[in-house]
Amino acid sequence: MTDDTLARLALSRLVEPGQWPLHEAVQRFGAVAVWDALRAGRPIGAVSEAIAGGSRVRAERYDVLDDVRRLERVGGRFVVPGHAEWPALSLDWLPGVEAPPLGLFLRGPTVLSTAVEQAVAVVGARASTVYGAHVAGELGLGLADRGWTVVSGGAYGVDGAAHGGALDASQGGTIAVLACGVDVTYPRGHDQLLERIASDGLIVSEHPPGCAPTRSRFLIRNRLIAALSEGTVVVEAALRSGSLTTARQARDLSRHVMAVPGPVTAEMSAGCHRLLRNGANCVTCAADVLDVVGRLVLDASPEPRGPVSPRDDLTHTERQVLDAVPVRRWAGPASIAKTAGVPTMTVQQILPPLQVAGLVEQSLSGWRLTALGAGRPARAAS
Amino acid sequence: MTDDTLARLALSRLVEPGQWPLHEAVQRFGAVAVWDALRAGRPIGAVSEAIAGGSRVRAERYDVLDDVRRLERVGGRFVVPGHAEWPALSLDWLPGVEAPPLGLFLRGPTVLSTAVEQAVAVVGARASTVYGAHVAGELGLGLADRGWTVVSGGAYGVDGAAHGGALDASQGGTIAVLACGVDVTYPRGHDQLLERIASDGLIVSEHPPGCAPTRSRFLIRNRLIAALSEGTVVVEAALRSGSLTTARQARDLSRHVMAVPGPVTAEMSAGCHRLLRNGANCVTCAADVLDVVGRLVLDASPEPRGPVSPRDDLTHTERQVLDAVPVRRWAGPASIAKTAGVPTMTVQQILPPLQVAGLVEQSLSGWRLTALGAGRPARAAS
Repeated sequence: MTDDTLARLALSRLVEPGQWPLHEAVQRFGAVAVWDALRAGRPIGAVSEAIAGGSRVRAERYDVLDDVRRLERVGGRFVVPGHAEWPALSLDWLPGVEAPPLGLFLRGPTVLSTAVEQAVAVVGARASTVYGAHVAGELGLGLADRGWTVVSGGAYGVDGAAHGGALDASQGGTIAVLACGVDVTYPRGHDQLLERIASDGLIVSEHPPGCAPTRSRFLIRNRLIAALSEGTVVVEAALRSGSLTTARQARDLSRHVMAVPGPVTAEMSAGCHRLLRNGANCVTCAADVLDVVGRLVLDASPEPRGPVSPRDDLTHTERQVLDAVPVRRWAGPASIAKTAGVPTMTVQQILPPLQVAGLVEQSLSGWRLTALGAGRPARAAS
Repeated sequence: MTDDTLARLALSRLVEPGQWPLHEAVQRFGAVAVWDALRAGRPIGAVSEAIAGGSRVRAERYDVLDDVRRLERVGGRFVVPGHAEWPALSLDWLPGVEAPPLGLFLRGPTVLSTAVEQAVAVVGARASTVYGAHVAGELGLGLADRGWTVVSGGAYGVDGAAHGGALDASQGGTIAVLACGVDVTYPRGHDQLLERIASDGLIVSEHPPGCAPTRSRFLIRNRLIAALSEGTVVVEAALRSGSLTTARQARDLSRHVMAVPGPVTAEMSAGCHRLLRNGANCVTCAADVLDVVGRLVLDASPEPRGPVSPRDDLTHTERQVLDAVPVRRWAGPASIAKTAGVPTMTVQQILPPLQVAGLVEQSLSGWRLTALGAGRPARAAS
């Protein structure tokens, strides 16, 4: 590790992430100078005396090599801006309220910078319903099967189901961004899931090994989930859910915000419906998500069956009449009736609903087919 | 009845509704002249020979007074443009694909023009689920309780539940727009519901008494449901649902289009989710609907409980710190710590998440409260 990397690792141990004065001092003076100042209790840049003073006390007993060894023991690595694995596009400029990470602790075979080139966050309630867990699992599987990385927070409920779905996929992958050290099993019940992610995917954290998760750290962590993804899907969320913070951060970071609808009678969907009312994109499946993030999907599932053309929905006589309406010139009902071989009165009764369905159009000279009626590609129904 | 009214009634019997050439001829020459021409088999205006010829055959055996007597027997009335009960603003100009009605058959005590001043359509699948019927009933009740008229199509499923909910309300009312005569009980199983609407609300149709519903008539009818309402709410709809036609007509008529979300696993909500993806407003209750149609709601229910201010969601220490952050000037963590009576290190750990929550802001000079943190009205979370 370079001195810069070691200094950033030490600063990660000493100061909670997301603080602009520290970030700005590091940008201006370099991490080594900031670290030297803080361990000596000297203010530097905009880093206040209070931070500096507090840091000195903690720094006195601290040896950064302890953390390096601890990280190596769990097979982890620490990457910083400039490193090949650092996802600069996602992280170097976060226009939100808190500063970018000084560095990231990683554990697992997935290459972070590559994985986040096509990544979507799937987050939601810890206390998810069976429905929410099912949908999250399907989304995780569907996104990964299409080669996307599923980013989430490793928590019970929606997060765990999304990770699990992605791990079951034939390709793609999953990243768990934790609010604790990459070696800390939190929540306890996800020991096997986190091991699988560490073996087949990637665990990411701003916190050095051994750090416990705290409420503050969950909130700060959420911005990384949003930042590492092209968009955030909230699967289930009550009105007071941390997932809504992640969604807000995604919006602040100009990422797509998506929500999965659910029964309006379900508390666990109320947060999603609030997001939808406030302009989030409604998504019901992986194809919808990729539709929103706007990437070409070569292997997307077929659209759900539906009236691709209202033609499909016609009775025999209606089809007869429709087939008798000319494409370019206009024709009166009597002429259409003659061609179709049905009574003029029937034609007169059938044409108006065909017009409502957008299949024929009318002028003072008569009727003709629309593009839709002529069987050319239809606009999506709305 | 005036001659104009009688002529319009006769034309309603003779020609299917929604045809522009007939509408334009009536506008230009008057209904009496058009009726005289059609019964004589003479073309008039843009009304083609075919319509005129077909009409003559039917007109020969027709006496309009039969229809007048038939309408009187069921206590119905026929209103035309210019009549006090005619909702001119809703109907006289329909920029959609089909012509406005020549007149409307009405049955029931509700005054049409008054009732549609505050009206919302609630429509959806005939084969609704228990969930859909429940939500439709709640919407009908909630809208009517707030003084609104609930417009629907009288069908099984969502329509019936919406009418039923509105009839149970203490005020408001309901209008059923039928694709058959106002004296025809369709569907059969809704005999009691339709009787209640005829007694306490209003049944509306473009078709003279005795007319049977046809598929064409349902489609044409849907434009009236959309036109008589400020917005259309689709509660449940499969991908091939007539309700989606109503929604499209509402959009074409510049009315609000709203959809109720449901489980993404439910076929009966797939049409609603498609609407939401295409820009329909997400509504979960009557208050949401009135929020969309944009009327002042004096008696609206309170907002669902949620983090109106993120302050509500804080721990004791977080509140202590927040309360110590100044409103106007900037303060460093040490100064805030002194005011709050907590360690500086704690303040340093608590401030970043408070910033994430939008309660405090940071500059190079320190920290201060945001408008939100100062307890001023919060933006709605999104």
